[in-house]
Amino acid sequence: MKVVETIAAMKAERGKLAGSVGFVPTMGYLHEGHLALVRHARTETLTVIASIFVNPTQFGPQEDFATYPRDPERDLALLEKENVGVVFMPSAQEMYPQGFSSSVAVEGITERLEGKPRPGHFMGVTTVVAKLFNIVQPDRAYFGQKDAQQLAVIRKMVSDLNMNLEIVAVPTVREPDGLAMSSRNTHLSPEERKAAPVLWKALCLARGHWENGEKDAARLRQEMTTLIEREPFAQIEYVSVADPETLEELEKVDSQALVSLAVRIGGTRLIDNTMLGG
Amino acid sequence: MKVVETIAAMKAERGKLAGSVGFVPTMGYLHEGHLALVRHARTETLTVIASIFVNPTQFGPQEDFATYPRDPERDLALLEKENVGVVFMPSAQEMYPQGFSSSVAVEGITERLEGKPRPGHFMGVTTVVAKLFNIVQPDRAYFGQKDAQQLAVIRKMVSDLNMNLEIVAVPTVREPDGLAMSSRNTHLSPEERKAAPVLWKALCLARGHWENGEKDAARLRQEMTTLIEREPFAQIEYVSVADPETLEELEKVDSQALVSLAVRIGGTRLIDNTMLGG
Repeated sequence: MKVVETIAAMKAERGKLAGSVGFVPTMGYLHEGHLALVRHARTETLTVIASIFVNPTQFGPQEDFATYPRDPERDLALLEKENVGVVFMPSAQEMYPQGFSSSVAVEGITERLEGKPRPGHFMGVTTVVAKLFNIVQPDRAYFGQKDAQQLAVIRKMVSDLNMNLEIVAVPTVREPDGLAMSSRNTHLSPEERKAAPVLWKALCLARGHWENGEKDAARLRQEMTTLIEREPFAQIEYVSVADPETLEELEKVDSQALVSLAVRIGGTRLIDNTMLGG
Repeated sequence: MKVVETIAAMKAERGKLAGSVGFVPTMGYLHEGHLALVRHARTETLTVIASIFVNPTQFGPQEDFATYPRDPERDLALLEKENVGVVFMPSAQEMYPQGFSSSVAVEGITERLEGKPRPGHFMGVTTVVAKLFNIVQPDRAYFGQKDAQQLAVIRKMVSDLNMNLEIVAVPTVREPDGLAMSSRNTHLSPEERKAAPVLWKALCLARGHWENGEKDAARLRQEMTTLIEREPFAQIEYVSVADPETLEELEKVDSQALVSLAVRIGGTRLIDNTMLGG
């Protein structure tokens, strides 16, 4: 496994590769969710390239960039075990040199849900992902279904800008109690950790009602809200039942719906989602 | 020469090409300036791909999109004579389908000169050029020095976003009296056409003063302004002596300077430039 820190070195390594390349971009502090992306990539492409980069531009000034968990040595050991070919691990200075002034943006779907309380977040994501795609030049890139809106935004960027790769979504990996794997779970106290599966419970509740014939989106939202509000550690940011492509809130769930949540558990902001009719 | 109108067909043609590809993006109504780009490309790359697309998003609502000159049949005949391999000629609907919502932007240098009276112009340019680069996947792309700011903006986009191609600048082609070739010259009445070389005369005057030791940028601007103001058909939009990379106005021309002008000749807006110390 090669570990490269500069863009020039990454492009040089890419130039040596024959055959298909799968790409797994990460912010590090890897968990089973990331490893599922790598394993999925390995079944479909000859060489897997992973990146580890905690992208400062997708964090707001009040957000957790400084305290976002980091453990590059452990990350590299995990990636090596998964037979990753190349790991790209640039510095912020390498990605955003003095005078950097370009951006890639998607309007509309970036303004809802995660985008609403986090202005600039998705522009940070789309810009860094566009850069990484140009640097790594993968045939396929793998993203977790857990960040459903991010996935929709990246698919839209790739489609609108005619980028030459395929985006592959990989199902969310969960703890035995249903909590979605996330690097931020490490911030939870033992008590908060016990409360955290309330997101998954709420999603399962909505699915249950929907499978029993409940099509009214407001009712589904209300059922989830009531469940979460019973949990003292939980503070709801949003509960959404939306069109999976446009992310506009639905009145009725006739065909597909993305049900998604953002909930603070103590000081930690968690998100999760499930697709109805998907 | 193949002529393709869809993105899928263009990508399919590109996939068949072995060897280096040069790309000449145009808005059509071709003149010797465009043909110089094609000829330059042919000396450096095995296959030349040209595009003809009058990009609506780079025109403001008060600008000349509707009246921008068009003659695709003549354009194709000219490109065929120059041994162009593929011409990409998409519709606006093909490039911007219903729901299109992505953009590529460069800040800073896009806000000055051409960008000031034309808000959104450069975002239209960078977005369409990023799309075209992804569709055509050239090794090199050729742009005229006449649109000096556009060239600087595209270079910045390519560098910031780590795009995998080289940008090549080709010198401006001029009429015998110095008027820079431009598709918009066709809008000039015979009298305006006689007045139009005042842009080039002003640039030559600045160069002359600079070569005789004048380093004061304000004096150079004043000399050009005085000359142009003597021409009754001419109305100055800007006269600039700026840093070639940042496009910030200079006080002194110590090393390099981009001298550039935008002047209305009757109803037609013309631009031109020259590099001092380049």
